[in-house]
This record gives sequence, C-alpha cells and structure tokens, in this order.
Amino acid sequence: MNIKITGTGSYIPGTIEKNENFNSHHFLNTDGSPINSENTVIIEKFKAITGIHERRYAEEHLTSSDLGFFAAKKAISDAKINPEELDYIIVAHNFGDVKHNTLQSDLLPCLASRIKHSLRIKNPKCVAYDILFGCPGWIEGVIQAQAFIKAGMAKKCLVIGTETLSRVVDKYDRDSMIYSDGAGATVIEATEEEGGILAHETASYTYDEAYYLFFGNSNNQELCKDTRYIKMDGRKIYEFALTNVPNAMKSCLEKSGTSINDIKKILIHQANEKMDEAIIKRFYKLYKMNPPTDIMPMSIDKLGNSSVATVPTLFDLIKNNKLENHSLTKGDVIIFASVGSGMSINAIVYKY
Amino acid sequence: MNIKITGTGSYIPGTIEKNENFNSHHFLNTDGSPINSENTVIIEKFKAITGIHERRYAEEHLTSSDLGFFAAKKAISDAKINPEELDYIIVAHNFGDVKHNTLQSDLLPCLASRIKHSLRIKNPKCVAYDILFGCPGWIEGVIQAQAFIKAGMAKKCLVIGTETLSRVVDKYDRDSMIYSDGAGATVIEATEEEGGILAHETASYTYDEAYYLFFGNSNNQELCKDTRYIKMDGRKIYEFALTNVPNAMKSCLEKSGTSINDIKKILIHQANEKMDEAIIKRFYKLYKMNPPTDIMPMSIDKLGNSSVATVPTLFDLIKNNKLENHSLTKGDVIIFASVGSGMSINAIVYKY
Repeated sequence: MNIKITGTGSYIPGTIEKNENFNSHHFLNTDGSPINSENTVIIEKFKAITGIHERRYAEEHLTSSDLGFFAAKKAISDAKINPEELDYIIVAHNFGDVKHNTLQSDLLPCLASRIKHSLRIKNPKCVAYDILFGCPGWIEGVIQAQAFIKAGMAKKCLVIGTETLSRVVDKYDRDSMIYSDGAGATVIEATEEEGGILAHETASYTYDEAYYLFFGNSNNQELCKDTRYIKMDGRKIYEFALTNVPNAMKSCLEKSGTSINDIKKILIHQANEKMDEAIIKRFYKLYKMNPPTDIMPMSIDKLGNSSVATVPTLFDLIKNNKLENHSLTKGDVIIFASVGSGMSINAIVYKY
Repeated sequence: MNIKITGTGSYIPGTIEKNENFNSHHFLNTDGSPINSENTVIIEKFKAITGIHERRYAEEHLTSSDLGFFAAKKAISDAKINPEELDYIIVAHNFGDVKHNTLQSDLLPCLASRIKHSLRIKNPKCVAYDILFGCPGWIEGVIQAQAFIKAGMAKKCLVIGTETLSRVVDKYDRDSMIYSDGAGATVIEATEEEGGILAHETASYTYDEAYYLFFGNSNNQELCKDTRYIKMDGRKIYEFALTNVPNAMKSCLEKSGTSINDIKKILIHQANEKMDEAIIKRFYKLYKMNPPTDIMPMSIDKLGNSSVATVPTLFDLIKNNKLENHSLTKGDVIIFASVGSGMSINAIVYKY
C-alpha cells in the first residue's frame, strides 16, 4: 500500500496588494522610534530580501474557513472522489477565522467543522479537526493523514492549509509586508499505485526557540497593549532555519532511500526568498553540491507568505502548469519542506 | 502490543467561584430583554439542571498553557518516564491562551510548543502540536496518539486538555455559569502489559449541527458587536447528545468485544448533570437495562464544565481515590465519552 496525493486545489484571493500600497504606511522600530529611511527605500530593501513584489489579501467578506472551503472543493473534484467517502478533514491554520477589521480569532466551531459543513458532507464518520503547528501545518496534516491510513483508521483524507495573515498584522511593522492570505488543499489516499510518501521528518524546537514567532504588541507604543499581532524575531529565525531545515531535509532523504541526484524539485515554505535560497544552498552543501537550476519553484514574488497555504498552493500551481519553467512528470521525486512558529520544521520526500 | 495510559495529572485552579457569586449579575435573554425572574430563582433552576454548585477559575496571572503545563508535569512524574523520551505532545483546547481581562486568543506559538518549552524538553524529535475538536479534544488526542503508535511513529505521547472558558464567557448570559477552567494530562504508551485502549469511535456532525456551539455576541445588545463569546443552543445540543452519544458508545462497545455487563465506569464529559444522566440512561436502554448504581462518576458539582479538561481530570481524580464512592481496580473496563462543539462526539473503551 502506498499513500498518495490524489487531488489538489488552491484558492488565491482576488485582492492584489502591491508593495506600492505600503508607501504611505508609517513604519516604526520595535521600540516605537521612527525608521530613518524613506518608505521607498524600506520597501526596496524588503523586496530585495524577501523577493515579494505583491501579495494577496482575502476579500473583506471572506474568512479563512471560506478560503479553505474553496480550495477543498477543487481538491475533491481533482481527486474525483465522492466527498462522503472522506474519513478525515484536517485543517491547518494558526489564527482561526478573523473577520475583516476585528481582533478576535473565531475558533468555535473549529475550521474543519465549518468547511465540512460548507462541503455539505453528511457522513458523521468523517472526522473534522484542526491542527496548529505553525507554517508547517499543512505538511504535518499530511503526515497525520499518513498515520491514520497506516494505522488502518482511514483510507481517504482531505488536508487543508488556510490562513488570513493580513488580519493579524501590525501595520506599523515592516514585517507586515511579508504576510498574505490563501489556502491550499489536497486529498490523500491509500493506493496500490506506485509512489507517494517515501519518508517524513518532523521536529519541534522549543527549548530556546519557542517564542521566535509570537503574538505581541504594535510597534506603535500608543496603541492598546491588550491588542496583539503576529511578530517575529527575523534574525533568529533566519539563523535557526539555515541550520535546522537542511538537516531535517537530509535526514528525511536518507530515510527515503533516495539519492540527492534523483530530487527533481524542492517545494519549500515561501517564507522569504533569500532565506529559502540559503536553505537550499546549505542543503546541497551537505552533499558537497551546488543546487541544480530550477530545483526550487517560487511563488513568493506574487503571493507573499500565506503560512500553511504556501506549500500546497505551490504544488497545485506546478501540477497545473501554472508556474513558468516548472512541471512534474510521473515518477519525479520531490521534497516538501517547511519551517515556522513553534519552532516547527518538517519535510516529506514524495514520489509524484 | 497494547496502548495504555501510564500516567495522569490534573490542575484544578485555586479560585472557587460559587453560584452565589452570580447573584449580582444582570442576566438577559438572547434578544436583550430582561429575564423575568429573581437571580436566586435563575441560579436555583440552573443548579437543578446542571448540578453545578461551584466552579474553578484560573488565577488571573495564569493562562491555559500554564494550566496544561502543571497537569503535564504531574502526568510525566506519575508515568515515571523521562520527558526527553516523549515522541509527541498533543494539546487539545478551543480558545488558546486568553489573558485575564483581554479579548484575543493567543495561539502563536501553539500551546503544545509553550508547554514543551516550560517542561524544558530539549529533544527536537518530540513533536508538539495542538488540536481543536471541541470538548472531546482530549479523547481525540488520545485516539491520535494511538494512531501514531500503531503506525510505528511513536512509543510515548503526552496528551493534554486545557481550557480557560471563564475568559470567553458573556456575563449577561445564564449559560456563563456552566463554564470553568482546568487542565488534565495523560501519558500514553505502547506496552506489553495487558489492557489499554480496546476500541474507539469518533464522529463529526456538521451538516445541520456545526453551529450549535458558536462564537457570538453578548446578550447585552449595547455591547460592541465585534466582541464575541462562547454561545450555545442548549436545547438543540441536549437533543442531539441524547440521540447520538449513546449510539457512538454502543458502536464503540461492540467494536471492543466487551459485554455491557463488564463496564465498571463511564467517564463522560461533564457538560450538564441532567444531560449526562439522560445520556447514560438512554445508553443502557439500548441494552434494555437500567444504569447500575455508581456507574457514572461526576465532578461537575464542584468543578463545572472545563471543556477538554473534564474527562482526564475525572480519570485522574478517580485513579487517586479523590472522588467519593469511586475507585478503579486493574482489569476494570471503562468508557470515556464526550460531546461538544463541531458537533464532535467520541468514545474509548479502555481496560484499566
């Protein structure tokens, strides 16, 4: 028995937020002091590091579970399954449903229940639950689906990553330009077909690293201290990721029994272009190699960092030939990898 | 190989909130109209239905992850394991960390990361993630731990249920008296010992039922519409639970191959005393029996409904002979069962 992704779908929100739209923002340092640069300079520097030119924001009337539902519908249709046959709906996110211009995360009921409700699935044996695991949540959901299938508890699972980070950003913080909204979904099935998940690796670094990404106050010291936003210690995350993500990928590759030379693509969480490039470089360096051309498809330039949604969206885009210079052929071995709050890291070696 | 609970721990917050403390509350109907009864009458009626005399609130400086950490420490010590050997830390909750007198759920990082950090566990291979599955979250966490063990992905898991419902209640709503705070934790291990999990059952009813428990506005129509609280349609939940929980328990019992006559205790989610009694009565009626005396240990009178924390806390109390007239002997077969938002239902038949 193999475990394969038999359907994919993604939802890319319609509102394009260009870098220029941040020209009038009043960016501050974390201590509240003004940043001694023109916004155009700040934005140019931001673009050079992250690779982000524009990002997507969810339409005002939609929430994270809506985005997840749209992506899920497409994945189910792509997999050509009857949704009533699903054994699990696993939804990864980090902030629940946050309505436009409000502060509270709505987690009641969990987003998986909402999406199952919207999909009009009747079967009560289809278990709907959410996982919180930082940006690597979608990959972790796939790993959990794999566990249920291996344990004989499931045959077909729907795994969704959905997020509206635009609703939890501090607009006085330059880092707010990184975040975007989106959703990706996949159907995971037990199958007799060749390929599928060859190996996985997961790690949680919490001893020193737990709060590298955290919920904190605005850089604008005059705002209410009870209101908090997504915050990160970018420098520490960068160094952390550069050391630990390549190691996790290597360990996963070894478990899979695949040669580094057989890897066709690495689909990495779209966190930051320079960081992703450095991770891949470091990964190949572990094998005394340079990264092959076109090994790492990127969508961050146009889609930003939509947390749990980046990897499944990237996979969906490539599968549907919507990403220039990137395609997949049956039998190709790829790596999914992610890093995020927790600090969580994971990777899957997958035969397409 | 069997899968057993090898350690338990709970944290019962120190602040006792008695029914009398609600005497001065200004209770309103959902449409904002005043309730035409004295508070003493409202409270008496409430007590008669729910069985709740008092409940526990977390100390002001603590959050849900703190409560979970306290319970986890006890469970690890009870299991006599080295925490560095844990493969998973699974934390069930529904609202994240909500600081006293604030509105936002803090989910960044996930609570499992925070608790692992507080436990000073270094091993990065110990995967820390959260699940959202309504009140049945702790039981579902145990079912997930079982899946990881069966799939060969884990040997030892820590499963925690923790919640501070007192931070998300609408004080104008009579239902606010139901909710309380607490945490329960368990260590789940693969073992050669006899007994353990014999069967499990899970269901998600979302077609009509997804929003029976929801995040909604205060009964006080003058409060900000952007601020929301835990809300429920009690009548619908009551009817739903009475039909579906006994069926899930019966299905689980059948899978386990155990006779109804061999069940020693049923540890059911402490939602509402009258509802729990009606569920157990209906369950035994499926076997044309009346419930045996002392089959259903209850803690709701003193601890209220602390969501995911009720079942593991109840188990911990009985195991430690802290609940009058209730004890467990090696070999006893018990049922864990729960129902909550989603609407989620689950049950485990367990040989002690």
